[in-house]
Amino acid sequence: MQAAPAPPPFAEPAVAAATAPDRGETLHALLRELYPVPRSLTGDGVRQTLRLLQQRLLPGLRIHEVPSGTPVLDWTVPAEWRIRDAYVATPEGERVVDWHAHNLHVLGYSQPVHSWVTLDELRPHLYALPAQPDLIPYRTSYYHAGWGFCLSQRQLDALDEPLYEVCIDTELDPHGSLTYGELLLPGDVEDEVLISCHICHPALANDNLSGLVVAAHLAQALSQRPHRLSYRFVFSPGTIGPITWLSRQTPASLARIRYGLVATLLGGPGAFCYKRTRLGQADIDRVVAHVLRREGYPHELRDFVPYGYDERQYCSPGFDLPVGCLSRTPHGEFPEYHTSADNCAFVRPEQLDESLALYEQVVQVLEGNQRYQNQQPYGEPQLGRRGLYGAVKGQGNPREAEMALLWVLSFTDGQHDLLAIAERSGLPFAVVRRAADQLLGADLLAPLPAAV
Amino acid sequence: MQAAPAPPPFAEPAVAAATAPDRGETLHALLRELYPVPRSLTGDGVRQTLRLLQQRLLPGLRIHEVPSGTPVLDWTVPAEWRIRDAYVATPEGERVVDWHAHNLHVLGYSQPVHSWVTLDELRPHLYALPAQPDLIPYRTSYYHAGWGFCLSQRQLDALDEPLYEVCIDTELDPHGSLTYGELLLPGDVEDEVLISCHICHPALANDNLSGLVVAAHLAQALSQRPHRLSYRFVFSPGTIGPITWLSRQTPASLARIRYGLVATLLGGPGAFCYKRTRLGQADIDRVVAHVLRREGYPHELRDFVPYGYDERQYCSPGFDLPVGCLSRTPHGEFPEYHTSADNCAFVRPEQLDESLALYEQVVQVLEGNQRYQNQQPYGEPQLGRRGLYGAVKGQGNPREAEMALLWVLSFTDGQHDLLAIAERSGLPFAVVRRAADQLLGADLLAPLPAAV
Amino acid sequence: MQAAPAPPPFAEPAVAAATAPDRGETLHALLRELYPVPRSLTGDGVRQTLRLLQQRLLPGLRIHEVPSGTPVLDWTVPAEWRIRDAYVATPEGERVVDWHAHNLHVLGYSQPVHSWVTLDELRPHLYALPAQPDLIPYRTSYYHAGWGFCLSQRQLDALDEPLYEVCIDTELDPHGSLTYGELLLPGDVEDEVLISCHICHPALANDNLSGLVVAAHLAQALSQRPHRLSYRFVFSPGTIGPITWLSRQTPASLARIRYGLVATLLGGPGAFCYKRTRLGQADIDRVVAHVLRREGYPHELRDFVPYGYDERQYCSPGFDLPVGCLSRTPHGEFPEYHTSADNCAFVRPEQLDESLALYEQVVQVLEGNQRYQNQQPYGEPQLGRRGLYGAVKGQGNPREAEMALLWVLSFTDGQHDLLAIAERSGLPFAVVRRAADQLLGADLLAPLPAAV
Repeated sequence: MQAAPAPPPFAEPAVAAATAPDRGETLHALLRELYPVPRSLTGDGVRQTLRLLQQRLLPGLRIHEVPSGTPVLDWTVPAEWRIRDAYVATPEGERVVDWHAHNLHVLGYSQPVHSWVTLDELRPHLYALPAQPDLIPYRTSYYHAGWGFCLSQRQLDALDEPLYEVCIDTELDPHGSLTYGELLLPGDVEDEVLISCHICHPALANDNLSGLVVAAHLAQALSQRPHRLSYRFVFSPGTIGPITWLSRQTPASLARIRYGLVATLLGGPGAFCYKRTRLGQADIDRVVAHVLRREGYPHELRDFVPYGYDERQYCSPGFDLPVGCLSRTPHGEFPEYHTSADNCAFVRPEQLDESLALYEQVVQVLEGNQRYQNQQPYGEPQLGRRGLYGAVKGQGNPREAEMALLWVLSFTDGQHDLLAIAERSGLPFAVVRRAADQLLGADLLAPLPAAV
Repeated sequence: MQAAPAPPPFAEPAVAAATAPDRGETLHALLRELYPVPRSLTGDGVRQTLRLLQQRLLPGLRIHEVPSGTPVLDWTVPAEWRIRDAYVATPEGERVVDWHAHNLHVLGYSQPVHSWVTLDELRPHLYALPAQPDLIPYRTSYYHAGWGFCLSQRQLDALDEPLYEVCIDTELDPHGSLTYGELLLPGDVEDEVLISCHICHPALANDNLSGLVVAAHLAQALSQRPHRLSYRFVFSPGTIGPITWLSRQTPASLARIRYGLVATLLGGPGAFCYKRTRLGQADIDRVVAHVLRREGYPHELRDFVPYGYDERQYCSPGFDLPVGCLSRTPHGEFPEYHTSADNCAFVRPEQLDESLALYEQVVQVLEGNQRYQNQQPYGEPQLGRRGLYGAVKGQGNPREAEMALLWVLSFTDGQHDLLAIAERSGLPFAVVRRAADQLLGADLLAPLPAAV
Repeated sequence: MQAAPAPPPFAEPAVAAATAPDRGETLHALLRELYPVPRSLTGDGVRQTLRLLQQRLLPGLRIHEVPSGTPVLDWTVPAEWRIRDAYVATPEGERVVDWHAHNLHVLGYSQPVHSWVTLDELRPHLYALPAQPDLIPYRTSYYHAGWGFCLSQRQLDALDEPLYEVCIDTELDPHGSLTYGELLLPGDVEDEVLISCHICHPALANDNLSGLVVAAHLAQALSQRPHRLSYRFVFSPGTIGPITWLSRQTPASLARIRYGLVATLLGGPGAFCYKRTRLGQADIDRVVAHVLRREGYPHELRDFVPYGYDERQYCSPGFDLPVGCLSRTPHGEFPEYHTSADNCAFVRPEQLDESLALYEQVVQVLEGNQRYQNQQPYGEPQLGRRGLYGAVKGQGNPREAEMALLWVLSFTDGQHDLLAIAERSGLPFAVVRRAADQLLGADLLAPLPAAV
């Protein structure tokens, strides 16, 4: 038998998954740059955000515009919202609430208004947080016409004029459009990994600029190295964005999505939390759980529930895509959530960096987790003759490497992928992957198609 | 979309499942009226019991007579047993054991006898309980010819005459019949709930007058209100009764039985105990376990074992019907079992009432537990447009009600019934049922046939 | 119905499974006789070992010779190794290491050598155990040409001559053969139980003379009594032996193997350890686990791992035979392993005897564990009429015997074998087996083919 092994088909990523202090700072710089852009479901804030991603990291990002009024699944693309100004001012002209001071001050998708109102008339249009009196809440009214201001309880308590000028200089353009970005990084195979984040939140750093910058940096890294799988990144406004995107897919394009993650809340201080797909035992569920456990991250695994982020749409029963949600502390479970305290100080560079490292580790297992068939399944093949018992010496733990050869040979039976073999053997995935490469080089394995 | 919802197809029962003090007393009064009737496998005691049920509660109850000698499955309907008198008397004519004083004093199905016997000749025919010296045991000899008396150990110890008159004035009529009662309450669908109780025990209140009165009152309540499912009540002597009843069914009639419960031992003080069907994961098993847990009853769940009550026959492997046994403390596990201490004082009104309440709660889930298919399964339907997000306000917990809408939409995929959705979501079944009704009203769900 | 039952088809074994002190001594005597025979992968030591088994216990044992150079699966039968002498001697002629003193002193499969070497030249060819300075290790070099001596650390430390004579008088004959033994004991059916042990180790008592003597005595016992199943015993050198044996099988002959055990390490003091088949839920896995638990042996159950003994070959994914490994403390987990301390004093008669008793108990369940179909599955059959309720009295625990009748009737539904019924009911297997025999005698059961 010819002992010259073919080059291993699984190349370990050129970019190390380990955290890097500089990388965290790079991520955070992008987050700070994006923070002041006034995003909403639609409008120029979204366009500006996507263009920044194009310029800074992802020249291949395609920006799509879908006209307002387009039917999308059970919904309709809303009018485009544009905002120029919004304030509450005293008769003396002092702006006591000013959208230019903080994007959160206006109720999202407010109708235009400009008039003088009494404090009592104004009150039903004001949103504050009595229990967190220094924070501005984040509120929207996308699908019910209305207008309003968000302010701190202290600001609210200080209002004592009988009459105020309110001005919301917005426009709801029925001839506008909804904007989203999409980037496909083709790999050796058409099987796709979908990474999706929502980009509609203004002036909130963890929810969801953190997801945005981690996903964009992951995309950039992948665009600069070879990869087996194809990767598709979708940056879109929440709910209506994935609904719009899904409405434009075909059964064939959806069938290519083998794994998916909603990337959100990746900058806060909490432990990781993985919410499984609706399917519950999809490969992505197994892979993320494996990485979180094996790499020793404090984390929590949760079953799918039908509320949360955009996995709601991807996992709706008609699509039922294998899309989980991999975040840190989930929405509503940290006090800064949907307030002005979710700012650039709350999100720390090292937390962004650790999140990106985790996503890279997940990618690494996705890349390497293939199925093979043992080509010498009758008895053990004589490894010594092929130099595979000797060859392993000096390569990490030789005993572990030899064991990995036996495990891979024993369980490449069409029933187990390499991840299943790693889980069953207790060996690190990379060691199992390396064993599979050695056996491939010795013609002892043949690739199998991905499981359907 | 037209927002006028159709009337909900699931009507909550007019009769509240909550316990009611008066109802307990009503149940207990019927139990006291039935207690002195001298029942056995066959004979007038059984007929009189069934006629009382007819007169008091169930005018539609049909009373069937099956001639002695009729082959039924592997068995034969026995001769009809009639008893007029039974006593042990001293030479002076004093009755030291007297059937008129307590029905339990005679060995069930005793052959007739009238003679003078010595105490030593008598002893092998006497049954007492040395460890419970004040109690009369319950003994029968249905399938082996014999005669005997049951008496307390104190009575037995007091016997000191050399000679006694024994008289058992019974008759075993080969031209008699076995008697059982059956009541069908047709519902909107032919799928049936079978409720079965044994009615052969004389002068035992918990075993099984309690089952009898709870089942009869449940039947009466159901006969006075609309219901989706059909309900079939069988009141028959133990073992030979269900065997006879089963022998008269057709495959088609048995196939209609979707759920079944043997109702027994429902008056004692112990916690509830549910014995699963032989199938082990039948819908009735899931429903009863759900109700016991969700309603907070102290209870125990047990796997099927092939002895116990009439579930032995329904669950024999040829029939394998989904029939469980829902009781309080099971047979043989309380000291009053099969003794004269199982009397009308042992069974308390509030215990009967709570048992009926539990059966009503089970009925409520059975009625409501249907399967639907989400009609807008691609992405989430826009609930706000249909007034379903607003509409829920003020209806109990609005957050819970909205969550229930999402849960039902997400899991009406053909794989889950509403009970499965309630279990998975942790929401009360009634809340899930209400959400399904709202979604049905908005044409977002369509009914599916019951699972086979 | 005719009540005369046919003789029970399951005869309890004539040989009691209980331990017997004399039997332990008999086993140990054979072990002591085999201990000095110089075994290796091939050669006269193996032949002599097999002939001793033939003469002492198994006249029907067939001894096979497979020529060196024969291709067997992915391997080739090696040259036959013969050894006449091996020593290290001082210039004065004193043998400081002498193969005649202990078989372990020579590296297995050493090439021939005879020359004078300096101590420094000698050292790379010497194997000792610094942590166990009094013990000689067991080392081989089957598939890499080499030579060497094994000696105690104390012997090694005492070497102080500048020059030594080394002599290894061996021969590697390319025209020799590999030798193995095989014994088939045909039963009533062709379904086979395979018992396999390796016989290549020299001067090691637990690994694996213990397996050899237990298997040989089991074979002898089975050869002297009727049995339902067929039993096949394979005595062969490790790894290459089963590979050779497997290479000579046909799909049909392998399909007959319904259960298999690798018998090894059965003489040490540790608790039993059962390593499951690769299949993980084969019948042999259920049977061994049942016996170990029910008989109260301290034991451990382990999942299959692809290293260990000859189950590696039988369970390779192409064959995937239902072969587990039933040992005491596994290889590498006791300090005497693969050293001169694994001697005849380490293996105790009562430990061998208990191991044989366990194998006999496993055989007893394998023999009795059949599948039946209830012939009266509609309702319970009337057992009293057939004398089956009376008949059980006086036969051990009558209540247990009656319960067993009900359990067997309820679960002989084509889904459960008798072992499954014993496990589910909690009754001893023998009681369930006896109940099945009574029901067979009453024509209430019919045999089913073994599950595929």
